[in-house]
Amino acid sequence: MSFIKEQIKTIRKNDPALTSTLEVFLYPCFKALLYYKISHYFYKKKHFFIARYISEKAKRKTGIEIHPGAIIGKNLFIDHGTGVVIGETAIIGNNVTMFHGVTLGGTGKQKGKRHPTIGNNVLIGCGAKILGNITIGNNAKIGANAVVLKDVPENVTVVGIPGRIL
Amino acid sequence: MSFIKEQIKTIRKNDPALTSTLEVFLYPCFKALLYYKISHYFYKKKHFFIARYISEKAKRKTGIEIHPGAIIGKNLFIDHGTGVVIGETAIIGNNVTMFHGVTLGGTGKQKGKRHPTIGNNVLIGCGAKILGNITIGNNAKIGANAVVLKDVPENVTVVGIPGRIL
Amino acid sequence: MSFIKEQIKTIRKNDPALTSTLEVFLYPCFKALLYYKISHYFYKKKHFFIARYISEKAKRKTGIEIHPGAIIGKNLFIDHGTGVVIGETAIIGNNVTMFHGVTLGGTGKQKGKRHPTIGNNVLIGCGAKILGNITIGNNAKIGANAVVLKDVPENVTVVGIPGRIL
Repeated sequence: MSFIKEQIKTIRKNDPALTSTLEVFLYPCFKALLYYKISHYFYKKKHFFIARYISEKAKRKTGIEIHPGAIIGKNLFIDHGTGVVIGETAIIGNNVTMFHGVTLGGTGKQKGKRHPTIGNNVLIGCGAKILGNITIGNNAKIGANAVVLKDVPENVTVVGIPGRIL
Repeated sequence: MSFIKEQIKTIRKNDPALTSTLEVFLYPCFKALLYYKISHYFYKKKHFFIARYISEKAKRKTGIEIHPGAIIGKNLFIDHGTGVVIGETAIIGNNVTMFHGVTLGGTGKQKGKRHPTIGNNVLIGCGAKILGNITIGNNAKIGANAVVLKDVPENVTVVGIPGRIL
Repeated sequence: MSFIKEQIKTIRKNDPALTSTLEVFLYPCFKALLYYKISHYFYKKKHFFIARYISEKAKRKTGIEIHPGAIIGKNLFIDHGTGVVIGETAIIGNNVTMFHGVTLGGTGKQKGKRHPTIGNNVLIGCGAKILGNITIGNNAKIGANAVVLKDVPENVTVVGIPGRIL
């Protein structure tokens, strides 16, 4: 129940197009995070097949693919969501907002922790790709379609391919 | 009926891969615009929940997310369509063509009219993001994966991040 | 059966997140290529409507859109897959890996063979768009969100918009 309340609060705060609380239940973000909570539970119990089955089902229904192994903080808001991919070893802080098409992925060169760590209050624009075991500092903003392959310090804005600090 | 005739004509004109008129009914573009017509009807009557419900259903079926409040001209053609997002206050002129992954979105800094206005005969390449209450002039072309944050004059081609005139 | 064995081998080789062989059947890549094999069969027999019907169904289920006319080599691996578009006249070599959001598309200026030809062992990063009747050489790597509009030689890495050789 606390998850539902948190999501209602998060979506109300973030989306100016929202007209009523009931609409929250239509949001792909809401559904995807609900499925993630279940898949993450099975993942921690090492029931990997059922965990993955649930996450693939969530992806078909919402367009948002969150690996059951990812670790996600409070108040994540994923707007629209189609094409979002969050990798197995990604870690997301609190109050993060991301748009459709965002990837927290790997570069294929690393083993173990091979996906990014995202700080608190980070905003990630639509289509941005953040790749590898890198860290995005608190309050950073990542521009639309940016490709980020290196650590990003706190409080900066990063845009372009490869991402450069504005 | 006129909508169906218009769509058949538009898709025939735009897609060299089309082999028969019947195939038009398989196009996500056709389905997404049909759902949009219904959701826009309910939006204008201020039945926001049902409008949003229909648009989310359309998105699940087609990968194309058109907010019920958007205003769309004649002969819009959306090719492929997965990942397209068209915001609540976006306005689209006549004979516009866009590909999959195109976003007509907001920057998060504006209230009220916060999505783009697209002129007539505009072509928007796959993955391009057009963000904020800006205007894209008639006959402009926006390149694949471009990020456009400022007004674009008529008859030009814009590419890159941020978008620059060729 | 040989297709299933090949896919299991390909996915095992490519995805460090895989934990058991059974999981392979959950992969959108596996489903999309199975549908493609069927749609390509009907396409070659000139049953274009049924071929297209199958490919659109596959796209709804997997987020991966492969035109029935495309020609695909051995051991293709499409990771995640949402937003992938492979055009009618695209040709893909052996041992190619591509990520979600990749497009092998057209520029709208060509007739006949209007989509790319991809060599062997090519790696295409997420969100990359390869457009027009161009050739990507063997062992080339295309970076995330790159836009490639010209031929790419063998053994190079291409990044950015427009794509440039590193």
